[in-house]
Order: sequence, then structure tokens, then C-alpha cells
Amino acid sequence: MTDPDRKGGDAVTDPAALTPAEARALFRGGLVTPTAGYSAGYAQANLIALPREWAFDFLLFAQRNPKACPVLDVADAGEVSASVFAGDLRTDLPAYRVYEHGRQVAETADVRDVWRDDLVSFLIGCSFTFEAPLLAAGVPLRHQEAGSNVAMYATNRRCRPAGRLSGPLVVSMRPVPAAQVADAVRVTSRYPAVHGAPVHVGDPAALGIADLDRPDYGDPVEVRPGEIPVFWACGVTPQAAVAASAPAFAIGHAPGHMAITDARDADYQVP
Amino acid sequence: MTDPDRKGGDAVTDPAALTPAEARALFRGGLVTPTAGYSAGYAQANLIALPREWAFDFLLFAQRNPKACPVLDVADAGEVSASVFAGDLRTDLPAYRVYEHGRQVAETADVRDVWRDDLVSFLIGCSFTFEAPLLAAGVPLRHQEAGSNVAMYATNRRCRPAGRLSGPLVVSMRPVPAAQVADAVRVTSRYPAVHGAPVHVGDPAALGIADLDRPDYGDPVEVRPGEIPVFWACGVTPQAAVAASAPAFAIGHAPGHMAITDARDADYQVP
Repeated sequence: MTDPDRKGGDAVTDPAALTPAEARALFRGGLVTPTAGYSAGYAQANLIALPREWAFDFLLFAQRNPKACPVLDVADAGEVSASVFAGDLRTDLPAYRVYEHGRQVAETADVRDVWRDDLVSFLIGCSFTFEAPLLAAGVPLRHQEAGSNVAMYATNRRCRPAGRLSGPLVVSMRPVPAAQVADAVRVTSRYPAVHGAPVHVGDPAALGIADLDRPDYGDPVEVRPGEIPVFWACGVTPQAAVAASAPAFAIGHAPGHMAITDARDADYQVP
Repeated sequence: MTDPDRKGGDAVTDPAALTPAEARALFRGGLVTPTAGYSAGYAQANLIALPREWAFDFLLFAQRNPKACPVLDVADAGEVSASVFAGDLRTDLPAYRVYEHGRQVAETADVRDVWRDDLVSFLIGCSFTFEAPLLAAGVPLRHQEAGSNVAMYATNRRCRPAGRLSGPLVVSMRPVPAAQVADAVRVTSRYPAVHGAPVHVGDPAALGIADLDRPDYGDPVEVRPGEIPVFWACGVTPQAAVAASAPAFAIGHAPGHMAITDARDADYQVP
């Protein structure tokens, strides 16, 4: 496996075998890497931290856009851990993006120096959570095979606004062999809290995606003959809303560089 | 059918056949009745309206207690309709309860005179929504047979607090023949947005309910030999939190006297 995005710390030979606490310790120690495949069996989460005065608008935005923004947990203003995340939200993700008035002003591995006590932190379900069940069902995952980040795209679909927050739906894409698309739908629909079933199958242009080779976030992923691009709602959507709506301050995870939670994938599975 | 709680307007011969707009017009015109069995196929909802400064705490309370408080829709401050409710939230429910500092100060059929422009209205899923599928599966519903309100109880289980809001879990109870308990679980688990599977089966004492014949809300319902009391999380839970947490002002529906929405039951069904 190659991992051009990985830096800091020693190579991790078996990331799937790490406990969430072990993975968080590596990230706290400086390892910067996309987290797909880490800590198998444990749910991963997107982070968006906003000032208290934006918290209601965001929680309502999430309620109105549940496929893109399934809320797993909320840390009250000033808190840096959560019931599903026993680590430190300021240091234990591999990388963060810091926003001022909607513009990204930094990408960094530690946000303690810019953290504010009025930040309310939202942990949003991540599609990496259903990747283990996809693999178990025989659906290949090229970004994991390639050791690269998943490909993500801002679409032409608008989220339902809430208060001052609005923005586009962001999706992640995985190429799926045509014979296995139904399996991919079936498996992921059992995980509604981590984006659930795909929002779109097979037609990038209908989502306003002009070129699959140029994702807005993450790395390009090859779509081979006989494969269909399948699109799931993505937890980067809140950061696209931040970019579009310009709250004075916000912190998000770097796309693909997730919070590894202590919750089990199975906790979010429905019958 | 007898209906001791019904007053105002003419008798409704077939409430199940009413469209949501027709039912709301009857309630707006003065009919006061529990709404179980009304407008078959359409989802019913609990109402809690709180001042804007309590809205984040409440939405977080709902997020942390999703079985009791599944949010179907939120009307922004000052709005009196919602995307799933084309009527007027101040007049189109059969009855309301008005709270000041946690104490109920009125039960009334029209709250226009006490409405405030800073009220954010939350519509919360209601278990009446899965009663049609229960009936379709052959599970009898005694409160509908009796034309009475469903029985509801405050339990000894505490909700997860959020900010200033805390309180007990409230449950609704339906007696189910022992041979059909599994059916009742199976059917209702397909409706997670309207309280889903039961929270408890068969042991009122374990929930701190001393006497099934004395519900805290609604009417007593006979549990016959061979029947098991089955308990579902109930959307009166927000009003119990209001009573326990004492926001300066709040308006809720009168228990069992629900908002009839324009959303279909089927919209909230999972595979």
C-alpha cells in the first residue's frame, strides 16, 4: 500500500487492528493520514465545530438534511470530548481545517491554539463506517486498495437551508462493478446514521459533476470499464455550508481524515 | 364508538377517511377529540413550541433522546406552518396546553391569543402513525375500539439532559395479546421516526409505573388476561421536560390530541 498523504510517525502495518484509543494516540502524536480502513468495527465521524450562536442553525440544518448530516453526537460548548469520542477533539484527528468567515485559513494537525470555549462540536456520521460491511459483502473499495483518500464532490443539489446556513450537497464516490451495485445499495441502506443508501447511481452529470477525475475533496479514484460510479451523501457537506454561509469561525476535519469514535459500526445498523 | 372526550362540532362518522386538511378544519372549527384513527395513512405529530432562546437546548435534547423525540419538522421562529403541516399550528390541533415556568396554566383549543413571534415549533413523531400498520397486522388497539385516548405514563427513566432541559421518559401503553407481541415489535420497529420499537414489554414496575389504571396522561385502558402491556416512547416527553425544566413559556398539544400532518405514514417506514 502506498499512501502519499501520510506523514509523521512510523508506518502503520495494520491500521484496521488499532483500537480507537490507539489510532487517536497516533494522530495526536503527529500521524497525518486518511482514516479509511482504520480501527475496523468502529464508527468514524466528521467534525464541525461552530460558535454557540450558530449551533441552533447548524443542528436544524442537520435535521433538515439527515442523509448528509446524520448527527452522532454533540459536545457542549467548551467540551473537547463526547460520549462517543473519549479522546480530545482538538488533537486526536489526523488533520483539521480552520475557517474564518467561510474561507479556509489553515490545515493543521492540532487546533488547540485556535480553539475557543464557545465552540459546539458536532460529530456527523461518515460513510467509512459502512466500508467494512461493503468489503464483507464482496464489494471492492478502490481508495482503500490504492491507499488513497476517497473522492468527494460538491454537487449542484442544494441542501435545505436552516437559518443562516445553506450550501450544496457534497457526495463521496465509489466505483462499483455493475453486478454489485444492488449489493452496495442493500448493504449501505442498513446504515442510515452514516449516510445510508446512495443518493445517486451512475450519472455524474446529473449531479453537476463535470469531471470525476477532479474531485473537490480527497483524491481521484479510477472508474474502470464495467464499473458504475455510486454516490453517497458526505459529511463534508457542513464544511461546504460553512464556506457558503461564512460564520465568523469554524473548525472541521480535513476531508477523509476522520474522528475515530468509540461507537461500534453495529450500533448504527438497522435490521 | 363512544368518545367521552369529544366536544364541539358534529359527530364524525368516519374519521379515518378525512384528509388532513379536512381534519384540521374540523379542529379549527372547535372539535376537541383525541386523534387516534383520524386521517388513515397520514402521520400525526406531537407539538412543542418554545422561545427561540430554548430552541437549541430542545433540538439537542431531541437529538440525544431520539426514541422519545424524533423530530419530523421544525417551524422557524414566528412561523405557524411547516413543510409537513400546511395548516395553522395555533388553531388546527384539537387542543393545546400552555405552560408558564413549567406549570400548565391553560388547556385550550386555540392559542392565537398567547402565541409569541419568538416561538420555534417542533413537530415530533407520534406512535398513532404506526397504529394503522398494527391494525393491518391484526394487532388490536383497545383505545381505538373504546374511542378513548391512549394511556401514557411518566416513567422512572431519565432522558439524557441537554443544556437546561431534562426530565423523565414518557411512554404510551397498548395491551397486546401475548401471541402478537412479536408482531407488534416487528411492525413498529419499521417506523423509527415515530418512536419505533417498544422501549419495554410486560413489566410496568420496572418503569416505575405503580398502577396501570392511573395513567399520567390520557385515559386508562383495560389490560385483559392473556394480554401484555407494551410500552413505546411517547412524544409527550418534551412536555414532561418542560414541566421539569421550567422555561418561561411553552405550548404543547394536549396529549393524544395531535397535529395531523400532510406526510404519509409510509414516508417514515424503513425497509
